[in-house]
Amino acid sequence: MTATTPDPLSELPGRIMAREMAEQPAVLRRILDEGAPGIRKVAQEIAARRPRFVLLTARGTSDNAALYAKYLLEVRLGLPCGLTSMSTTTAYDARPDLTDVLVVTVSQSGGSPDLVASTRSAREAGAITLAVTNNPDSPLAGVSEYHVDIMAGPEKALPATKTYTASLLALYLFVEGLHGGDGAPAQVLPDLAAQLLARQDEVRALAARYRFAERMVITSRGYGYPTAKEAALKLMETSYIPALAYSGADLLHGPLAMVDNVSPVIAVVTDGKGGEALQPVLDRLRGRGADLVVVGPRSQVEQASAGFVLPTEGVAEEVQPVLEITPLQLLAYEVTIARGQDPDAPRALAKVTETR
Amino acid sequence: MTATTPDPLSELPGRIMAREMAEQPAVLRRILDEGAPGIRKVAQEIAARRPRFVLLTARGTSDNAALYAKYLLEVRLGLPCGLTSMSTTTAYDARPDLTDVLVVTVSQSGGSPDLVASTRSAREAGAITLAVTNNPDSPLAGVSEYHVDIMAGPEKALPATKTYTASLLALYLFVEGLHGGDGAPAQVLPDLAAQLLARQDEVRALAARYRFAERMVITSRGYGYPTAKEAALKLMETSYIPALAYSGADLLHGPLAMVDNVSPVIAVVTDGKGGEALQPVLDRLRGRGADLVVVGPRSQVEQASAGFVLPTEGVAEEVQPVLEITPLQLLAYEVTIARGQDPDAPRALAKVTETR
Repeated sequence: MTATTPDPLSELPGRIMAREMAEQPAVLRRILDEGAPGIRKVAQEIAARRPRFVLLTARGTSDNAALYAKYLLEVRLGLPCGLTSMSTTTAYDARPDLTDVLVVTVSQSGGSPDLVASTRSAREAGAITLAVTNNPDSPLAGVSEYHVDIMAGPEKALPATKTYTASLLALYLFVEGLHGGDGAPAQVLPDLAAQLLARQDEVRALAARYRFAERMVITSRGYGYPTAKEAALKLMETSYIPALAYSGADLLHGPLAMVDNVSPVIAVVTDGKGGEALQPVLDRLRGRGADLVVVGPRSQVEQASAGFVLPTEGVAEEVQPVLEITPLQLLAYEVTIARGQDPDAPRALAKVTETR
Repeated sequence: MTATTPDPLSELPGRIMAREMAEQPAVLRRILDEGAPGIRKVAQEIAARRPRFVLLTARGTSDNAALYAKYLLEVRLGLPCGLTSMSTTTAYDARPDLTDVLVVTVSQSGGSPDLVASTRSAREAGAITLAVTNNPDSPLAGVSEYHVDIMAGPEKALPATKTYTASLLALYLFVEGLHGGDGAPAQVLPDLAAQLLARQDEVRALAARYRFAERMVITSRGYGYPTAKEAALKLMETSYIPALAYSGADLLHGPLAMVDNVSPVIAVVTDGKGGEALQPVLDRLRGRGADLVVVGPRSQVEQASAGFVLPTEGVAEEVQPVLEITPLQLLAYEVTIARGQDPDAPRALAKVTETR
C-alpha cells in the first residue's frame, strides 16, 4: 500500500479500540521485560517503610484495577486496605492522619486534577504515596513520592483496554515485590493473552446473544470481581446496555430478583478459591433457568448455557484477572458492532481526535 | 374492628413494606430517646482505645449504611477507612494484622454466617470489633466485643427500609460519640421523617414517570452517594428496573454514554458541600436534555425536570441522608405498584411468612 492510498480499514467502527486490544500481549511482555526491575525496586523501598494500611484511589477503569490490587494486598500480604471516597478530601476537606499509610493512586493519564489534589494532600498528611500511571511526566507522577509506569503506550480509544491489563500486571508485580516475590506466575500471561485475542470469532458468536439485550448482570467472587465490574463498565461505555456487576454474595441479597430468563447473566469464574466460593450462586442461577454465560475454566463453561473457555490450567489464580477481561473487552466491542454502533464513539464523551 | 373481621388492608400488595416505612419516625425517636446513651458509652470506650483505621463490613442495604459511616468517619474524624472485601477472609483465608483497627460489622439480622466468621477472625487478629445490628441476641452481636442495637423492631418486608434509616442514625450517633459530640443535629429527624411520609401522593405522581422505564441512573456525591446506592438497590429489589448508581464524578468517566433522553436520571442533592460538588454533573445532564429528577432542596428541584423537595434548611448536611432515602423508598414502592407488582414479594427471594 503506498502512502497515498487511504487505508480501507481506517474508517471501520471500533478500529482504535481494536488496535489497542490487540497490543495487549506486547504491552504485558514489555512490562515483564523492561518494567519489572524498576517496579521491584519501588516495592522494596516501600516495604522497608513498613506501611500498615493501604488506601487506593482511582476512578472508572482504574478503580477496577485498584480493586484488584486491594484483593492482592489483603490476600497475599494481609494488609488492610480501603478504596478512597475522594470527595471526602476534595469536597469536604478531610485531613486524616496518614502516618504508616500507603496511598496508591491509579490513573492512566495521571492528569485528573482531583487525583492530583487528593494525592498531594495525602502526602502532606504523612502518607507514603505511589502513583501508577501510563505517563511518567504526568502531574500525578510529579506529586507522588514513588511512581510505577505501566508502559502501555498512548491510549487513544475512549474505552480503556490495554491500560487496564497493564495496570493489573504492574500492580501484581508491585504487590509481589512488597514481600520479595519475583512475580514468576505472570510470565505466562503475554502468550496466553495472544491466544485469547486469536479467538475473536468465538466472542462474535457469543455477542449475537446480546444484540437485543436490555440489561445484563455480571457476577463473580474474589479475584474475578474486579473483572466483573470492569466488564460491566466496558459494556456500558460502548454498547449502552445497562450492565450491573455484583459480587455473587451480594447478588443473592436482593438483586437476584432482576434475574430471570430474559435477564442474561455472565459469570466470571476464576479457577481457584474465588470460583469455588461462587458455586452456590451458579447453582442458584441455573435453578432459576437464567441464561448463564461463563468465562472460566472448561468444566465451568460446560455446565453453563454458553461461555468462553479460559486457559487456566497451571495459571495462578491471582494472575487470572489479567486474562479474564480480554474476552469481555472483545465482547463489549462485538456487541456494540452487532448493535450498529461504534465502540470508538460513545455518545456522551468527547471524541478523541486521533493524531499521527 | 373485631378480632374475627379480616383486615381489608391485609391483602394489599406492599402492605408489609408500607407499614415498616411508616414506622420510621417512631424508630428514629426511640434511638434518640432510649438508644443514644448506650451508643455514646460504646463510642467513648472505643475512642479511649484510639483506633487508627476503620474497616466496615456489611452486605446489601447494610453495606450502603456502612458507606455512609465511612464518609462520616473520614470527614468528621479524619480516620482512614475501608470497606471489607469479605471473600478475602471467607474464601482466601487472609489473616491481616488488625492491631489498632476498628472493625464495624453492620447487619440487620446479625445472623449471616459469613459476617459472623469474618468478625470472629477480625477479633482474633487483634481488631476492636463492633457489631451494629437489629438483634442484640444475634450470633454477630455475640462474637463482637461491642454492640450497638438499632432498635428498629422486627423487620418482615424483604426490602429493608426502617432498618436502613435506623442504621444510619445509630452510626451517626456512634461516630459523633467517638469525638465527644452529642449528636444534637439528629433531633430534628423524627418530625421531618414524619412530614416526608405524609407526602406519599407527591411520590405517587413522580412514580408514574417510571412506569415504563427500562433503566434508571441514580447519582449523587459525598454524603448523598450512599443514598443513591440504596435507592438503586431498593428500586431493583422491588420493581426489577435496572437502576445504576454512580457517584457524579464516576458518571462523567464513562457511563454518561448511557444517559440520554430516554434514560431517566435521579440526582440526590444534599444541601451542602456534596451538592455543590455535584453541580457540574447536573449542568452536564441538563445540557444533554436528560430527564432529571432531583431529590434535594427547593432551589435544586426547581432547575430540574421534576423532583421532591427535601426540608433541608437548618438540617446539618451529615444527617440529611437519613431523610433523603425516604422519598426514594416510597418511590420504589409506588413504581412497583404502578407496574402491577407486589413490593412484598420480590421474585427471587424466599417470601417471608409474616407471623403475628
